[in-house]
This record gives sequence, C-alpha cells and structure tokens, in this order.
Amino acid sequence: MVNDERLAQQLRFIVEIDKLKRVLRRTLLSDQSRRENSAEHSWHIALMAPILAEYAAEEVDVLRAVKMLLIHDLVEIDAGDTFAYDAAGHVDKEDRERAAADRVFGLLPEDQATEIRSLWDEFEAADSPEARFALALDRLQPLLLNVHADGGTWRTHGVTREQVLDRMQPIQRTSVFLWEYAVHAIETFWVKGVVRVIEDDDDGE
Amino acid sequence: MVNDERLAQQLRFIVEIDKLKRVLRRTLLSDQSRRENSAEHSWHIALMAPILAEYAAEEVDVLRAVKMLLIHDLVEIDAGDTFAYDAAGHVDKEDRERAAADRVFGLLPEDQATEIRSLWDEFEAADSPEARFALALDRLQPLLLNVHADGGTWRTHGVTREQVLDRMQPIQRTSVFLWEYAVHAIETFWVKGVVRVIEDDDDGE
Repeated sequence: MVNDERLAQQLRFIVEIDKLKRVLRRTLLSDQSRRENSAEHSWHIALMAPILAEYAAEEVDVLRAVKMLLIHDLVEIDAGDTFAYDAAGHVDKEDRERAAADRVFGLLPEDQATEIRSLWDEFEAADSPEARFALALDRLQPLLLNVHADGGTWRTHGVTREQVLDRMQPIQRTSVFLWEYAVHAIETFWVKGVVRVIEDDDDGE
Repeated sequence: MVNDERLAQQLRFIVEIDKLKRVLRRTLLSDQSRRENSAEHSWHIALMAPILAEYAAEEVDVLRAVKMLLIHDLVEIDAGDTFAYDAAGHVDKEDRERAAADRVFGLLPEDQATEIRSLWDEFEAADSPEARFALALDRLQPLLLNVHADGGTWRTHGVTREQVLDRMQPIQRTSVFLWEYAVHAIETFWVKGVVRVIEDDDDGE
C-alpha cells in the first residue's frame, strides 16, 4: 500500500498552484490582447530552456534549469507579481516572497519541499550555472514580447533604455551571443521607435 | 561569430508559440473564474511530472517527460483544442494536428525541429514510458480541476461516469496507485454529486 497522506499532500500542492494562473504580470501577450499571467510565462521560459541551452557560457543541467523555471514564480501566489521597474514594490519583496515560499512549498512532502525550496533559493541568489541561465531566460522572454507588442510595458510605463539595459544584465552574465542580440533589440527599438526586431534581422527571407 | 540565422529561427519559434496562451480549453480553473488556456495547462502538467514521477510503473526520464509535456499542445496553435468528449471533433483531429506539427516545429533549426517532432510523435503514440506517463498527467490534471470546480466540464457538458473512466485509462496503464486515486475521485463524485475529494481523503487533519 502506498502512503495515502503523501499523495494527498502532493495533490493539494498541485491544486494550490492552479492559483498562479490568476497572477497577472505587466507584460502583454505578443498580440497585445491582454496581460500575461505568471503560469503561462513560466511555461514559456521553461520551453525556452532546452531551445537556448546551447548559448549558456557555463555547462547547464537542463532538467534543473527547467524545474527552476517551472517553480520560480510560485511565491507570487501569496506575494503577488512585483513589476520589474517598480522600485517601491521591491522594498519588502524579499520578505513577502520568503514567507510565501515557506507556505506554498511547505504543502509538499518534506523531501520534495526541501528540493524545491533549495532550487528557488538558488535561483533567487543566481547561485549556479542553472540559476544564472534561468534568470537570463526570465529577462529575455519579456524583452521578446515587448519588442513584438510595439514596446509593451516599456512604452506604456515610460521605462528608459538605461533601465532596460540594467534589467537585462543577467543575460550578459550568461551568454555573450544572447546579450549581443538583446542589446541590438533594445538599441534598435530606441533608435527606431516601434520596430519588429526579429523580422529586421532576417534579411535573407 | 555564432550563427545569426539559427538564433533568428529559434526566436521566431519562441515568439510564435506565445499564441498557445490564446488557445482555450474547456476545463475551468479550480475557482471556476474562467476557462484554462493550453499554455498554462502545459505548465501545470510539466510541473506535476517531477512531483509524481515516483508513481510511474516504468522508469521515466523526467527531463524527456517534461519536454514532451511542454510541447505536447503546440499543434493547437493551428489545429485548436479538441474537447476530450467531442467525438465529431476527433474525426479529423489527427490530420489537422500533423499539419500543425509540420509548420510549428518546422520553424526551428532542423536538429531541434527533428527532436521535438519525434517527442511529439512519441507522445501521440504513447510509445515509451515517458509518453505513457505524460499522457497520464495530461488526463489527471483536468480530473483534479473538475473535482475542485464542482464537476466543471463533466457537469456542464453532461459527460457520463463511463466516459470519464474511459478517458482516464492512460492513468491505469501508468500507475496502479494514481489509478486507485482517480477511480476513487470519480466514484465519489458520481455517488455524492458535488464533493471535494482530496479533503475527504484527508481524515488525519
């Protein structure tokens, strides 16, 4: 007989995290039809990991990176999403998110709670090749959406080029090539205004 | 210099798959506030994989299963979501989805397109331990949501107990224990009507 209480804990966690689908980010979908939620954002970057792992400067264990990306925003179920360019919101972000991590991960059986908490701590501290790569994808994805949503939150929230370049630093730490792309996308956007960078790059087709 | 065209292909794919966030399933979120989309559904089951892998009857490579779950619904960008209990919609589902797989996966560089296509074919054919496990999670997740949304699509679409049990067969193939849970959840739901099965199971707290 398998341990019923263990499965009950796991299923309670699985049902609880459904709430992440109701946490809205500022980022718009690429067609600008609505704001993105944190669950679908997490799906997007988790899928980007195996596609872009070849660009990571350090060797990356893709499964660890994907797990990190799947769980990195779960704390927002209690703590909410803090807009990247909202300085005030970041003051108590760390405390709110730590309390959320205690509660949400704590729903799981102890061994799994410990593993996921440790992955989340590692991500937050950018403390491993996987964490640095995951953080870079977490920055690159809204950049891609903003570029395709005619500037998206950069435009609607009056974000400056310098703020964006600063926010994208984790990409520079992970991949010279992805950083080259990001800088090019940002510069092109600010020079030309509303542009679609990928199509512009694609002279050959 | 890295291959610019390769990165451009990868980024085009990444931006294209943003569209999966606009494909709606019939399933409601657990709070019944709205229908679930296929991107957030994919996130949910991808995260379930490492949590529940211990119940798989066959040894499972978790990274392969997670990748499969992340990409399994991408064909819906062109083919749309076909409701599980819609017999008519299933008639040409296979052809529509194969054409979609050709186009969407074909955006990637050839090596990655081949890998993802092969994972998707494997999932569709339930042709490996990972595919059978992934398929079971794809069935288990809407069951959990329906049970927590007071019957959800089972109730609103007049689905019968026999249809649900039949639909859940992939769980039986993968895990005696998850199957035991699923049957118990279904039977309890049909016997009592609207119930919250996980709480009922949890006598100890």
